[in-house]
Amino acid sequence: MRLLPKTGRFFEKFVEQAATIHEAAVLLLDMLEKSEGFENTGAKITDLEHRGDNITHEILTSLNQTFITPFDREDIHALSSRLDDVLDLIEAAANKVVFYKITGRMQPAVELAQIIVRCAERIKTAMAALERQDRILDHCIELNRLENEGDRISRVAIAQLFEQERDPITLIKRKELYEVLEDAIDCCEDVANVLESVVLKSN
Amino acid sequence: MRLLPKTGRFFEKFVEQAATIHEAAVLLLDMLEKSEGFENTGAKITDLEHRGDNITHEILTSLNQTFITPFDREDIHALSSRLDDVLDLIEAAANKVVFYKITGRMQPAVELAQIIVRCAERIKTAMAALERQDRILDHCIELNRLENEGDRISRVAIAQLFEQERDPITLIKRKELYEVLEDAIDCCEDVANVLESVVLKSN
Amino acid sequence: MRLLPKTGRFFEKFVEQAATIHEAAVLLLDMLEKSEGFENTGAKITDLEHRGDNITHEILTSLNQTFITPFDREDIHALSSRLDDVLDLIEAAANKVVFYKITGRMQPAVELAQIIVRCAERIKTAMAALERQDRILDHCIELNRLENEGDRISRVAIAQLFEQERDPITLIKRKELYEVLEDAIDCCEDVANVLESVVLKSN
Repeated sequence: MRLLPKTGRFFEKFVEQAATIHEAAVLLLDMLEKSEGFENTGAKITDLEHRGDNITHEILTSLNQTFITPFDREDIHALSSRLDDVLDLIEAAANKVVFYKITGRMQPAVELAQIIVRCAERIKTAMAALERQDRILDHCIELNRLENEGDRISRVAIAQLFEQERDPITLIKRKELYEVLEDAIDCCEDVANVLESVVLKSN
Repeated sequence: MRLLPKTGRFFEKFVEQAATIHEAAVLLLDMLEKSEGFENTGAKITDLEHRGDNITHEILTSLNQTFITPFDREDIHALSSRLDDVLDLIEAAANKVVFYKITGRMQPAVELAQIIVRCAERIKTAMAALERQDRILDHCIELNRLENEGDRISRVAIAQLFEQERDPITLIKRKELYEVLEDAIDCCEDVANVLESVVLKSN
Repeated sequence: MRLLPKTGRFFEKFVEQAATIHEAAVLLLDMLEKSEGFENTGAKITDLEHRGDNITHEILTSLNQTFITPFDREDIHALSSRLDDVLDLIEAAANKVVFYKITGRMQPAVELAQIIVRCAERIKTAMAALERQDRILDHCIELNRLENEGDRISRVAIAQLFEQERDPITLIKRKELYEVLEDAIDCCEDVANVLESVVLKSN
């Protein structure tokens, strides 16, 4: 095993992790667009989160058994952890909808979930292009741009909430949903930062 | 000094830092079980937090004066910082109880504090076994499992709070206590992540 | 370019980034002291935040084009990111004031902003002294001390808020302002931690 490392396996696993993120992001968007059938969709997202945990575990175990890695051991660890964080935050957002019993379509939440889907698409493309390092920095720039857009949407949404919502408990619930959606987007930018660092080191 | 580094000192200091965390965790549990005499126990936890700061400072100063370190300089820095964070969060939880004047036994808070105590025991054991790298990954797996358990407890607790608590200010206080307890547990998992990375690099 | 790296450029850029942080910190303090003309000052802080983003981008691009760096590539990346975070949090504090329409002088918020200004001064001095590594650890100790002071002020402020403020929505707004101001101070301590690590490695 150590003498014949299959370094390509890491790239495959990252692609798989990104696909799981994308699948969860699409379900989250669906949940927020429909505002019904939450428990069912929430359970599917939790399943995907467990699948993601398994992939993360496989990557870390491979890292332990492989002598030569395709890029820095620490960066493989960091990239895998950040991808895991994105999926955790998507699940956390879904959990808020389910556990807080948030009902009624919230337009800014839908828009933030759309941004998460677009981030997930970019991450998927970047993971597929990581081995040949094709246009990775372009994807990073786009992830940064999407993060700025998400930031703007959530700021306006929270300001409006404080202006219009008179029930403090409803305000707390909705504000937290906006915040966790924004955290998920921020975390996609963290993925971009690790990718940027991988590219920087290899040049 | 530089010619005769006492590398064992780092391991001793980590054991000491872990013992301080454990002591603070036990006091926090006691505080939440009894729901009285907060100021007194809170002051003891703050003393432990200061002792922990001193140990952290000693580790960083040693790092500065030692030429050969038992494992990566950066990981010694990271491990010490994450242990420091755990203690900070235990103190933050105690401070919330004291400053928010939270009264009345909160069963989920007690359960979360019990998990913190169990995490602290694991961290103590792991620190004592770090020099000979004995079963470190097992302790990491258990810390991850405890984190999942804590996560589940705090989610259910917060969902119940939103269902049952009608006073928004009480809701905010209790929710924050659950969250900071969960943060402390998460931070124990971060300790596990650093340990995992130390083991990965040494293999 | 690669053959004749101008390593001094990194130090210049860090000085510039620190000056931008300081300028934004002074405006934030002004905003909190006056409690009027928020939109105008807020817009200036947002401009500074964009300028800071550009400097960060320039540093990362230089890093990409320079073969020999004055200190670890990873630490240049980390230092630049942490400085960027400080500026982001100063802007986030200003945005809370503007978007939440917080009015009326809040003495603890003014005190926290004063600490941010003092942190920014220290960071400026440290950045100017980084190339010759002059007294960097002293500045780190002072940044740690300022963080402790900020911590104490915000804890007391939040405890008082829970005792005195009966309107939950006002309580949420003010509590968040205290918290983001404290986060900005914490982030200055993170800058100190990177600097400490740079000094540790170079010794």
